Amino acid sequence: MSDFIKSIEAELITWRRLFHQYPELGFMEYITTYRLGKELEKLGFTIHLGEEALDHDARLGIPNEADLNEHELLAKAEGVEASWLAKMSGGLTGLVATWDTGRPGDHVAFRFDIDALPITETKDTNHIPAKEGFLSTTEQTMHACGHDGHMTIGLGVATFIATHQSSLKGKFTLLFQPAEEGGRGAKAMTEKGWLDDVDYFYSGHIGIQSLPIGTVAATTEGFLASSKLNVTFTGVSSHAGMHPELGRNALLAAAVTATNLYAIPRHSDGITRINVGKMVAGSGRNIIPSDAYLEIETRGETRQVNDYMLAEATRIIKASADMYDVSYEITPVGITEEMVCSETLIPKITKACQSSDYVKEVLPIAKVSGSEDASFMMNRVQQHGGKATYMLFGTELKYPHHHPSFDFQENVLAVALDTFIKIIEGGSQNE
Amino acid sequence: MSDFIKSIEAELITWRRLFHQYPELGFMEYITTYRLGKELEKLGFTIHLGEEALDHDARLGIPNEADLNEHELLAKAEGVEASWLAKMSGGLTGLVATWDTGRPGDHVAFRFDIDALPITETKDTNHIPAKEGFLSTTEQTMHACGHDGHMTIGLGVATFIATHQSSLKGKFTLLFQPAEEGGRGAKAMTEKGWLDDVDYFYSGHIGIQSLPIGTVAATTEGFLASSKLNVTFTGVSSHAGMHPELGRNALLAAAVTATNLYAIPRHSDGITRINVGKMVAGSGRNIIPSDAYLEIETRGETRQVNDYMLAEATRIIKASADMYDVSYEITPVGITEEMVCSETLIPKITKACQSSDYVKEVLPIAKVSGSEDASFMMNRVQQHGGKATYMLFGTELKYPHHHPSFDFQENVLAVALDTFIKIIEGGSQNE
Amino acid sequence: MSDFIKSIEAELITWRRLFHQYPELGFMEYITTYRLGKELEKLGFTIHLGEEALDHDARLGIPNEADLNEHELLAKAEGVEASWLAKMSGGLTGLVATWDTGRPGDHVAFRFDIDALPITETKDTNHIPAKEGFLSTTEQTMHACGHDGHMTIGLGVATFIATHQSSLKGKFTLLFQPAEEGGRGAKAMTEKGWLDDVDYFYSGHIGIQSLPIGTVAATTEGFLASSKLNVTFTGVSSHAGMHPELGRNALLAAAVTATNLYAIPRHSDGITRINVGKMVAGSGRNIIPSDAYLEIETRGETRQVNDYMLAEATRIIKASADMYDVSYEITPVGITEEMVCSETLIPKITKACQSSDYVKEVLPIAKVSGSEDASFMMNRVQQHGGKATYMLFGTELKYPHHHPSFDFQENVLAVALDTFIKIIEGGSQNE
Amino acid sequence: MSDFIKSIEAELITWRRLFHQYPELGFMEYITTYRLGKELEKLGFTIHLGEEALDHDARLGIPNEADLNEHELLAKAEGVEASWLAKMSGGLTGLVATWDTGRPGDHVAFRFDIDALPITETKDTNHIPAKEGFLSTTEQTMHACGHDGHMTIGLGVATFIATHQSSLKGKFTLLFQPAEEGGRGAKAMTEKGWLDDVDYFYSGHIGIQSLPIGTVAATTEGFLASSKLNVTFTGVSSHAGMHPELGRNALLAAAVTATNLYAIPRHSDGITRINVGKMVAGSGRNIIPSDAYLEIETRGETRQVNDYMLAEATRIIKASADMYDVSYEITPVGITEEMVCSETLIPKITKACQSSDYVKEVLPIAKVSGSEDASFMMNRVQQHGGKATYMLFGTELKYPHHHPSFDFQENVLAVALDTFIKIIEGGSQNE
Repeated sequence: MSDFIKSIEAELITWRRLFHQYPELGFMEYITTYRLGKELEKLGFTIHLGEEALDHDARLGIPNEADLNEHELLAKAEGVEASWLAKMSGGLTGLVATWDTGRPGDHVAFRFDIDALPITETKDTNHIPAKEGFLSTTEQTMHACGHDGHMTIGLGVATFIATHQSSLKGKFTLLFQPAEEGGRGAKAMTEKGWLDDVDYFYSGHIGIQSLPIGTVAATTEGFLASSKLNVTFTGVSSHAGMHPELGRNALLAAAVTATNLYAIPRHSDGITRINVGKMVAGSGRNIIPSDAYLEIETRGETRQVNDYMLAEATRIIKASADMYDVSYEITPVGITEEMVCSETLIPKITKACQSSDYVKEVLPIAKVSGSEDASFMMNRVQQHGGKATYMLFGTELKYPHHHPSFDFQENVLAVALDTFIKIIEGGSQNE
Repeated sequence: MSDFIKSIEAELITWRRLFHQYPELGFMEYITTYRLGKELEKLGFTIHLGEEALDHDARLGIPNEADLNEHELLAKAEGVEASWLAKMSGGLTGLVATWDTGRPGDHVAFRFDIDALPITETKDTNHIPAKEGFLSTTEQTMHACGHDGHMTIGLGVATFIATHQSSLKGKFTLLFQPAEEGGRGAKAMTEKGWLDDVDYFYSGHIGIQSLPIGTVAATTEGFLASSKLNVTFTGVSSHAGMHPELGRNALLAAAVTATNLYAIPRHSDGITRINVGKMVAGSGRNIIPSDAYLEIETRGETRQVNDYMLAEATRIIKASADMYDVSYEITPVGITEEMVCSETLIPKITKACQSSDYVKEVLPIAKVSGSEDASFMMNRVQQHGGKATYMLFGTELKYPHHHPSFDFQENVLAVALDTFIKIIEGGSQNE
Repeated sequence: MSDFIKSIEAELITWRRLFHQYPELGFMEYITTYRLGKELEKLGFTIHLGEEALDHDARLGIPNEADLNEHELLAKAEGVEASWLAKMSGGLTGLVATWDTGRPGDHVAFRFDIDALPITETKDTNHIPAKEGFLSTTEQTMHACGHDGHMTIGLGVATFIATHQSSLKGKFTLLFQPAEEGGRGAKAMTEKGWLDDVDYFYSGHIGIQSLPIGTVAATTEGFLASSKLNVTFTGVSSHAGMHPELGRNALLAAAVTATNLYAIPRHSDGITRINVGKMVAGSGRNIIPSDAYLEIETRGETRQVNDYMLAEATRIIKASADMYDVSYEITPVGITEEMVCSETLIPKITKACQSSDYVKEVLPIAKVSGSEDASFMMNRVQQHGGKATYMLFGTELKYPHHHPSFDFQENVLAVALDTFIKIIEGGSQNE
Repeated sequence: MSDFIKSIEAELITWRRLFHQYPELGFMEYITTYRLGKELEKLGFTIHLGEEALDHDARLGIPNEADLNEHELLAKAEGVEASWLAKMSGGLTGLVATWDTGRPGDHVAFRFDIDALPITETKDTNHIPAKEGFLSTTEQTMHACGHDGHMTIGLGVATFIATHQSSLKGKFTLLFQPAEEGGRGAKAMTEKGWLDDVDYFYSGHIGIQSLPIGTVAATTEGFLASSKLNVTFTGVSSHAGMHPELGRNALLAAAVTATNLYAIPRHSDGITRINVGKMVAGSGRNIIPSDAYLEIETRGETRQVNDYMLAEATRIIKASADMYDVSYEITPVGITEEMVCSETLIPKITKACQSSDYVKEVLPIAKVSGSEDASFMMNRVQQHGGKATYMLFGTELKYPHHHPSFDFQENVLAVALDTFIKIIEGGSQNE
């Protein structure tokens, strides 16, 4: 079956490099979605776009209208068809591609995230995309987390399904999810019901840990549930020398919030985290500050523990506003859940990969940290009785994710694709 | 007229020393009120006691029931008549003594405060009360602010009025006010209406500044409006190691209150002050503290500025409670207003004192600080068109007020009494 | 061998009730130590007292001199011999009793803690000590944690060793440790070297969890490393109305400390805890507070993590003092380490207990929380290659430990004693 | 003498509008200084530039090198001679122009401030500079405080002196001071000794209060001593989820600084003010913030009181850095002193203005607030026995100072100029 990989290997590289050149931020992946969609359409998949794919109101952290408009115009200029743009307009990006073999069998879902990061890519000539000429064409936007690779693997999986459909059973759902960064898009796809009757769910990440090419982790553990909030405080400015008593000090409300957020009590049920990553307040030295802005993140080992952190944070923010007699607004801009990979998939994946020429070693579990919104999809699958996992695909990492010099070894694409193919084959043949 | 002073001088000393031996805390001046009342009754004054003298609900910082009961029993044992005790029961101490000459003329009021302090008097033999044998008979209670002298002057004024009534005009009201310390009693007398038709109001203090005997200040300036609050926070205790998340931390609510109270903005309309003088919180090292207690004081150059401080403080206390999800209770335990002495009394007093053998020098104004609840009475008089002042009577002070070794020179009593007599005579004769 | 337990059962009850009637706080166990010592002397043990038993300077949280003196006089009055008192004077309580069989074999150590708590025992007649007439004879002191039982078990073990010495091998060290509460005494015994060549160390606790009589846990997990600190801040008082700028506010230093201590960042290497359990600051409402006192506790899943918490706390306390220009003093009053029981003892204990008529079930491990200073001894034993465990002995608990109504079922004494006897026998016979 | 005003009136308007079109920020007034200098040179004044005029190191809040370079290039392009630029290079802007009549008489100094503000001027056509076509030519820079008028008055005074020199006595020093905004330039001129032998010093402001044209205040009171500080905290960033304990949180150091700065105790010697006008901290939501920036201002009724505020603030900043284990840097960027106008100038000015056709009313004193660095010059003059005042020149103000629509009535220029001329004449003739 490695013949298939061989036959598609060059195309994988081409796709990946194309995606790398056109990075788009979350909920603005208009060009990306269009290119994916056209390819999948060509393969014969049924394409679900816009409000069909995503719950409009369950999205978080949607860009402002001006940015959306600008990117839609750009997409139009780049050749995205008007009918496609119409469906995606207003940040309804990403798509779901489905395939029904018509034969009884499992419903298997794969998820690939497609958004890029607000990072300016290095021009350093040691950086492969610079040396080989496929650097990001957009300032301050870069695929610095490997999602260009993830999409590529997704197209590879789709090609395999389309070309081998006669020997496959059951149904396949490929979720090309927007806005993974910040935990903003998965909930909206999940709410649409795509995962409700899925038997097996597979997602995963290139890298995370620096591992040799060919190493694959069947499951991961350690992702925390998390909430991301933006908070604004609005008070009243006043001349600090002339009328200090007339001001309503938003900066102090923000300062008190910050100090007291970190003091949220530890929780005996599990790990907690809290951070105020950014604060901007005030306008001038001699003016009582009337505005303040905070970027906050809570995490918890479980949804319940994170809910506790979020409830405490919310109360503290409100009380800080009351303390300084200012108004406040909390905007949720991201959310993830904890995830527990289905242990029963470990032997299944391990066995399936034995016949792979690309997978050298299957680790049963890899320790990670941080947060992932694939958790929403996994939890939905598991709640309905399905099995789900989040895997790692080893690559050497010279620079960490989210770094201007981030890159991965392109042969990981073949490893990941063959892993998924072997899982599909294993599933179709053995169960 | 100095013959009168001479005739009463020994009695002044006797009275003062008797009062000094039986100090009583605010709203527990049962014995003191009784002794004053019996003396004034003997002189022919009409005596107003209990709810006749004080507005029951306008009192602040009333002692707890157990303390009141104990002191009422003590008063009974000391010989206070049951009918008097019945009227004073529950902390309705102090009295108002009135005299109407039946002749048209001004209504003149004098106010004397009668309460003592929770201080244990020194036994040092250099301390005159120790040397001369009239130390406080009660542990942890002492006339350390000169109110024993004030009452004595009051009895002197009463004696003068009674013995010279035939040559006087108008009406006289002598207010023997309880609970001056902490600003707890004056409002209750004022609310009863005693000051509503007063033309001239005189009060004052022995000492404050260390000045030579014979020096009198006709007016004072600098007393601030103030509010005194006790605050309790009540949360939920929890084992700090096992279940930190189950606690509701009253200590932190109190800590946040303290920090943020001091940060109340300065006010462009005048001086402000804030203090958290006491904090007691928590029970044990490994228990999330479920209770906290604070003693707070705000001050402002004017009532409005103090109202601002109080409103800010109240909001901060509430928000701190909300922040830590604990309940709170604010108990007002004292209040004073700012006072502005009537300038027109300066020449009046200066002139009246010219004929005194005891007053050596009249200062037009003395700078003071701190707070005085006579302010309620003065403001009421002035609001109704009357004139009011708060004077100082010079004495050397070896120790400051509220010190265990505080004492004053007893001949200040004659100076103060003669000042008030000359004012009475001046008023009756010249206007 | 149950004949031995039967023969000593009445004596166990007598001992336990005597100890219960004479509770003594940490480092003031003069009478307790004397009674233990005389009993052990009688049995033929070598007794090590005072500086022989404890490192003088490694003790933490020593009572003040006045309390020590008072309790030494009391002990003298109660019949403690002068020569014993001389050795224990100044809080050098507790003792180490050693027995060498002269035959090659393991060195086995047992540790029993002997101090009581500052709690007033309930007089409720449902409380067995009340009903049966062995209530604490001392107000505000009570064996409310079961150490009266621990000592009793210790005397039982000693009696067994003395009466069965001819059939035993190796050496025995019985540590009767003072001041376990607050983690104050174990380090001082450990520093003296008693554990340095111990092969097996056993300690344990009656209760902790409410378990049926006869249930024994071979090991425990979950005790955190901890540090206990008292902190005083000393500033300068000043009249809050007159000269706020002259004060140096110790209350605010304490408030800032409290808020910021809770904000010490979580640690990725393990659980952390922080608590400010008590704050007392200030003297009067209108005085800038010149003094403040805090009781603080840090915890960490490992010694390293707790060291991190302690280092952070120390820096924050110092900076808070600097911020308010006050001086500070940190007094360490307790310390515990984390403990990891030797897993290899689980089968050993389980097997040994199979022959017991008293032990019904051996749980391999029990989850606990809180902190235990036996950890110092265990870690020392393990560092030198020995094995160590901390066990639980089941009893029904109607009230939690440290409660005025705390009590345990007295037949747990026989269970615990037989457990230790079986371990001794197993050790002597099988290895 | 009004003939002189008439003769120069058109020129005043021309000058003012030119200056208005070319606003320059503090220490970057290269073009402004050059234009002033060329004009004054032409009139015959001796010009002192660069290090002759200013103490290099006493300047505060100097722009960064890049900005200085850019503006120097701009000035060159605008035609400023290289020899002038060389002297001013690096922010040594402003100049001192002197005139010695050669005749014995007073040394009279006038000070005019020349810098603009970082404000973008409104293009609203109701705004006279827009309607009449003399808007600022530079984005984000505007004469929104009237300094364009002040300089114009200065040129008027210079023209008067030059054209009337034969009838004048004594010496004249005109200080065209850079960087008044933020209190950055006056100290540097003062340190150079220009004021050391001045007998009379006059400065003043157009507007401040909205007063009718023709109204002049002879003196002002209420300017506070002040200090302006920028503070940066530098810590260590870390992933907030993975390694919170490795971060050194600069945002929290800044938050704690802010809260505690406002809590600096009030001072019994006079008014205090404190403000943190701006805070910017952190880089991303999930990163422990490693950097923070604060803009702070302290004020005090006297230099001593402001010194107290500054000392307290400095200690709090340092302690906050220590508390969060971050480094800090305090950059003083501005300073003013309190000023007390010489009362004896009130009658002098009042009398001088009686003969003016432009001055309608002389107010003896006007209440102001805020801060002014002319205070350094005035205090220096007064310390050496001279007299000094800071005046107001009435104009209607539709918008407050520092507002994008700020403007003044241009006929105030004639009023102010005639006031100074009358003072010069009065001084030369009458004393």
